[in-house]
Amino acid sequence: MSQTLKLAVIRGDGIGPEVVDEALKVLHAVADGELDVQETPFSLGAERFLATGDILTEDDMAALAAHDAILLGAVGGDPRDPRLAGGIIERGLLLKLRFAFDHYVNLRPTKVHAAVGSPLADPGEVDFVVVREGTEGPYVGNGGAIRVDTPHEIATEVSLNTAHGVERVVRYAFDLAMRRPRKHLTLVHKSNVLVHAGSLWQRTVAAVGAEYPDVTVDYQHVDAVTIHMVREPSRFDVIVTDNLFGDIITDLAGAISGGIGLAASGNLNPDATFPSMFEPVHGSAPDIAGQQLADPTAAVLSVALLLDHVGRADLAAAVTRAVEADLADRSTTRRSTAQIGDAIAGAAAAARTTTA
Amino acid sequence: MSQTLKLAVIRGDGIGPEVVDEALKVLHAVADGELDVQETPFSLGAERFLATGDILTEDDMAALAAHDAILLGAVGGDPRDPRLAGGIIERGLLLKLRFAFDHYVNLRPTKVHAAVGSPLADPGEVDFVVVREGTEGPYVGNGGAIRVDTPHEIATEVSLNTAHGVERVVRYAFDLAMRRPRKHLTLVHKSNVLVHAGSLWQRTVAAVGAEYPDVTVDYQHVDAVTIHMVREPSRFDVIVTDNLFGDIITDLAGAISGGIGLAASGNLNPDATFPSMFEPVHGSAPDIAGQQLADPTAAVLSVALLLDHVGRADLAAAVTRAVEADLADRSTTRRSTAQIGDAIAGAAAAARTTTA
Ligand SMILES: CC(C)[C@H](C(=O)O)[C@@H](O)C(=O)O
Ligand SMILES: CC(C)[C@H](C(=O)O)[C@@H](O)C(=O)O
Repeated sequence: MSQTLKLAVIRGDGIGPEVVDEALKVLHAVADGELDVQETPFSLGAERFLATGDILTEDDMAALAAHDAILLGAVGGDPRDPRLAGGIIERGLLLKLRFAFDHYVNLRPTKVHAAVGSPLADPGEVDFVVVREGTEGPYVGNGGAIRVDTPHEIATEVSLNTAHGVERVVRYAFDLAMRRPRKHLTLVHKSNVLVHAGSLWQRTVAAVGAEYPDVTVDYQHVDAVTIHMVREPSRFDVIVTDNLFGDIITDLAGAISGGIGLAASGNLNPDATFPSMFEPVHGSAPDIAGQQLADPTAAVLSVALLLDHVGRADLAAAVTRAVEADLADRSTTRRSTAQIGDAIAGAAAAARTTTA
Repeated sequence: MSQTLKLAVIRGDGIGPEVVDEALKVLHAVADGELDVQETPFSLGAERFLATGDILTEDDMAALAAHDAILLGAVGGDPRDPRLAGGIIERGLLLKLRFAFDHYVNLRPTKVHAAVGSPLADPGEVDFVVVREGTEGPYVGNGGAIRVDTPHEIATEVSLNTAHGVERVVRYAFDLAMRRPRKHLTLVHKSNVLVHAGSLWQRTVAAVGAEYPDVTVDYQHVDAVTIHMVREPSRFDVIVTDNLFGDIITDLAGAISGGIGLAASGNLNPDATFPSMFEPVHGSAPDIAGQQLADPTAAVLSVALLLDHVGRADLAAAVTRAVEADLADRSTTRRSTAQIGDAIAGAAAAARTTTA
């Protein structure tokens, strides 16, 4: 009897639908006979908001919560549309889900695939994972402004950091480091300036680290990390960092590896009190939407993270191998989004069989 | 009769003294007969703090304030020394001076010098300037913590942004853009998450920009900027951004160009109510200190920024040309800090004569 996976699917805006279709194609190819994938589509995103005024209702939330996992393509409409100003969709949908479903681990792996290359002349062997905190820091929406639109305007943004929130993500990062050959953890912060938050992170890493004597630990300021990521990215294994620093350095990590078209992410609730959510790091790219120009690989790799999360490391490995084979095989001929999906789906089904 | 320049010199810690010595060598070579440089040495930094317990006294401040400009090498001792934990020197000295002397423009130019190269395989023509705000944002030291060292600890950091503070630095950036051939300004923030601060920055750029119809403007989120800086850094001309984002992206900018050993900065008080301060972006690098291993070029280029700031663009240009000639001429033989300084000083004196 095969395991059931109740999957909420948010195809979203722009290139979201196209890449999700291919990700699902690969999921079905690899799941066939192994995993009974039951999909529920959710039409959420800029399009629905512009049509109905709703971003995410209580009913949407309750329905989403009844699933084992969420697959999300990308959300966000035309950035020049004044009705979508100020990141209203990103905050009302993406961030709201991360916070409401307590996605305290935002997992973002980076690998340089020999065949794809890197904008770096000599990247070396790059294979690291950023464990970005997902529910605290400057992302809490705890800011305000007075005297708006006057010469005396003051605007604040508060970064909120709790022992509870930091400890659980740090522990996750140490557990992850233990499962990797190099067993190395780098804490990234800006403790010489953000002393209170920085000190909490540093003390937490020291305290939790005492329980993981096999993991070596170092600390880097976020500014210095950008240098190492360009000059010697192979030095990193697991990086743990706050929500904002994680946002910044994972885009950089995507850029120095195969590009943001390959960067996958999992918004994890490791306690499984709510469904985890998997999404490519890239955005909705409205300028190229609907033209089969988008690379679905990041969405496909997000499915691999999803499979891993639901306990099917075997199927996740088949997807990853299929992606690697496809990347190794890329010629200069441009393929459509669906052609890439077809190729990976075929390879994934085959990869599963060879290890079964 | 030659102009007098009262220069406060903080050689500082680690490699600071070595690189400042060379920067002063170049300054004297180029100033000879043109500018009467009157130096006052200030022994400030980790060494003095460990010896006396003082970081920066009221007397120090008053004495520094009586100068036309400050040249600083680098401050900060051994990061493993518990007496120096938490960035006490960086905050008590560097940040204190930036705030007390109202250095609201932190100017950081980036150029890829053909001869030096870049870790990027194909950087293109890179020549941009980051105008980093220097007196606000998350750097204001407005954070705190309760229940420290308990499972209920909460630590906060507040980013403070004022119309006054944002408007003046944005105006500076537009003025700078007007003086450059491409006349392009990029605002960098994270307005889809930090909505209050982001909105203040965006509205300010729109309002001030209306007075500069010749300057084209765009906006990038800080995460996306790291991608562009790696994939297409030639697109940037002038970037204006907040204190923390500026800290992060200028280290990245240093890394994609000749490295942090070439990155100069000016902490400017454009109103001249207090002396401006010029320093290499790099730190004190205690591990290589005292061995004549440091590259003094960033300190020398900081002197060029200083000369420009005191109205001697002619002498600044001579220094820059000398640095460029020296970079073009670098063989694989390693030169000492002093040898590099000698070479640039000689070339600077010559460069001045040829244009005089
Ligand atoms: C869209 C935006 C709110 C989001 C973030 O800042 O987290 C995105 O950049 C990401 O990294 O997933
Ligand atoms: C030393 C540190 C406080 C400083 C900063 O964060 O501004 C440094 O990184 C810089 O960029 O000048």
